[in-house]
Amino acid sequence: MINGHGDDAFRYGRPIVANFSSNVYGHVDLTPLKAHLRERLDAIGHYPEPEPYTLERALAARHGIAPGSVCVTAGATEAIYLTAHAFAGTHATILTPTFSEYADACRLYGLPCSCGEARVGLVERHGSFRAKRPRWPEKGSGARRESLPVTARETVWLCNPNNPTGTVIPKEQLMKAFEKQPETVFVVDQSYGFFTREPLLSAAEAVAYPNVVQLHSMTKRYAMPGIRLGYITACPQLLERIRAVRMPWSVNALAIEAGLYLCKHPDTAPIDLDALLAETQRLHTALNAIPGVTAEPTQTHFFLCHLTEGRASDLKQWLAETRGILIRDASNFEGLDAGHFRIATQTPAENDALVEAIRIYLEEPR
Amino acid sequence: MINGHGDDAFRYGRPIVANFSSNVYGHVDLTPLKAHLRERLDAIGHYPEPEPYTLERALAARHGIAPGSVCVTAGATEAIYLTAHAFAGTHATILTPTFSEYADACRLYGLPCSCGEARVGLVERHGSFRAKRPRWPEKGSGARRESLPVTARETVWLCNPNNPTGTVIPKEQLMKAFEKQPETVFVVDQSYGFFTREPLLSAAEAVAYPNVVQLHSMTKRYAMPGIRLGYITACPQLLERIRAVRMPWSVNALAIEAGLYLCKHPDTAPIDLDALLAETQRLHTALNAIPGVTAEPTQTHFFLCHLTEGRASDLKQWLAETRGILIRDASNFEGLDAGHFRIATQTPAENDALVEAIRIYLEEPR
Repeated sequence: MINGHGDDAFRYGRPIVANFSSNVYGHVDLTPLKAHLRERLDAIGHYPEPEPYTLERALAARHGIAPGSVCVTAGATEAIYLTAHAFAGTHATILTPTFSEYADACRLYGLPCSCGEARVGLVERHGSFRAKRPRWPEKGSGARRESLPVTARETVWLCNPNNPTGTVIPKEQLMKAFEKQPETVFVVDQSYGFFTREPLLSAAEAVAYPNVVQLHSMTKRYAMPGIRLGYITACPQLLERIRAVRMPWSVNALAIEAGLYLCKHPDTAPIDLDALLAETQRLHTALNAIPGVTAEPTQTHFFLCHLTEGRASDLKQWLAETRGILIRDASNFEGLDAGHFRIATQTPAENDALVEAIRIYLEEPR
Repeated sequence: MINGHGDDAFRYGRPIVANFSSNVYGHVDLTPLKAHLRERLDAIGHYPEPEPYTLERALAARHGIAPGSVCVTAGATEAIYLTAHAFAGTHATILTPTFSEYADACRLYGLPCSCGEARVGLVERHGSFRAKRPRWPEKGSGARRESLPVTARETVWLCNPNNPTGTVIPKEQLMKAFEKQPETVFVVDQSYGFFTREPLLSAAEAVAYPNVVQLHSMTKRYAMPGIRLGYITACPQLLERIRAVRMPWSVNALAIEAGLYLCKHPDTAPIDLDALLAETQRLHTALNAIPGVTAEPTQTHFFLCHLTEGRASDLKQWLAETRGILIRDASNFEGLDAGHFRIATQTPAENDALVEAIRIYLEEPR
């Protein structure tokens, strides 16, 4: 695991009053869900289903796919690790910069990794995801790449919309790639799928491909990262390979209760996405207007920024300690540098406070 | 994962009124813990610590060991799978009959497995855990035993008190074995440690050995299997190997809250152990008195029974469908046969109802 993720308020003695560091949009009303969990606390007294079949059936019904096409996991994180385990023996191409867990999980299971370019236009520009394959830098001791031939079957890992860039690879480009490389398994993390207006592949569309694994998070849409709930969708034959490596009871009974509730009440904790995306553009423009900061284009509610001079880690420290504002130092994403940080849009007042604080930070001589 | 564990009430249409199938003793008062969780439901709105360091420190303080000696997991199940992963490359000797997850986890990570004899007196009788090593029957496709030499470093897996037998290997025998085989890692699952009066190795005693990994469950003592909370203790150098294979955020925020609460209030949900063990002996004697049933000796609150004729699965089905009583068909434990079932002691009235129901089942011609 890399050292340094978002939402790390626990590192600071000072209370955090505005948190831009997590892509989870927390300004939602979870009252009905919490009321439901309060009523269902007795669930802690019994084993959950060894594999959460009931929730898998409910999610399958919601997506209009076969129950054998859904595998519920302890957050999208378990989905990532199970997929890496199931496809140990393949070569992993990871479209970077992206969420570090794909590489961490692949390394843990000995998949040799190389990185591709995740920004929009990739397929059009290069005709193939294979275009750019420098070797992934070696870290830790888990890798066993020597034992695997370069000609091994391949997995391509991508996040769409992508974390940390917020960019979306167009649906048609992905479909072309799936068809062009039938021997490659595409692992598409759609955890942020709710947070964009760009067209994305639905689960029902994706399970029609024999070589596509989609990862989903219930955490992000419903702002409940503490509960650890995600799922994988894929055609049943492909998913069987992933089911074969899961351990029983990995998903907590309260997480299952939450999932069942949200299948029945999908409109819980409503988010006005158009307003959120418009506010994102306003914040983006305001940050771009600060000399010394570049905000990169995004198609969702979070985006990358870059300091022309200085380190994002210093800015993060200053914001946390002087303003109680938390941002995500993005310098530990593969392919980014010490100047990168990630911002997830919050309320207009919080966003204004962030812009003002960064302006002051950059104006002060240091 | 094997098909068929205990606590599988969800398989039956009829409500289960008495549940002997799970080793979790559920007749405890969880009101204070649930009240605490009710107050802390906001925890679902934030990521838990990527690795639950705060709870690890609290557990370390409770056991009087170094924080680096504790690794918190999503139930003892994750502890088992992490340990198997960390020691992939060793040969696993599993003392059977025992909890099937050790073998499942070892097979998943390609450890070649053989079985030993887990009943009391093993070390005295054979002088070593290595005495009996038939090859473990091949199942599934996970095994890669061919790639590992027989001379590979070894892990010995044992459950103490043992599930499903309820028997305890004496502490002195274990200590002798740890010292005699310093190149072998002993994985000691002490999930049921609370439920016996036999002396067991404490976590503080166990971490003094460089070759001992102890697995602990908070589920069993506190009757909250739905929450998935366990931990591993070992000397920090050994535990580092296990930490290296864990994924972040595997432990749900509410599970962490429950763990922290129970560290501060360890006497929550009190159990009168002497009364429970005395009632176990009463139930044991009553079952042994039924012609056609043999109850095997135990040193905890659960035990194995064996039908002289007929299948435990048929008895289980009949009890569930006609009486709403759930037992554990134990025939799928390696080394047991179709006649074995496991009983966990419940209230005197429930126990009497079980004895009466089994007596009637065996008296009826079928």
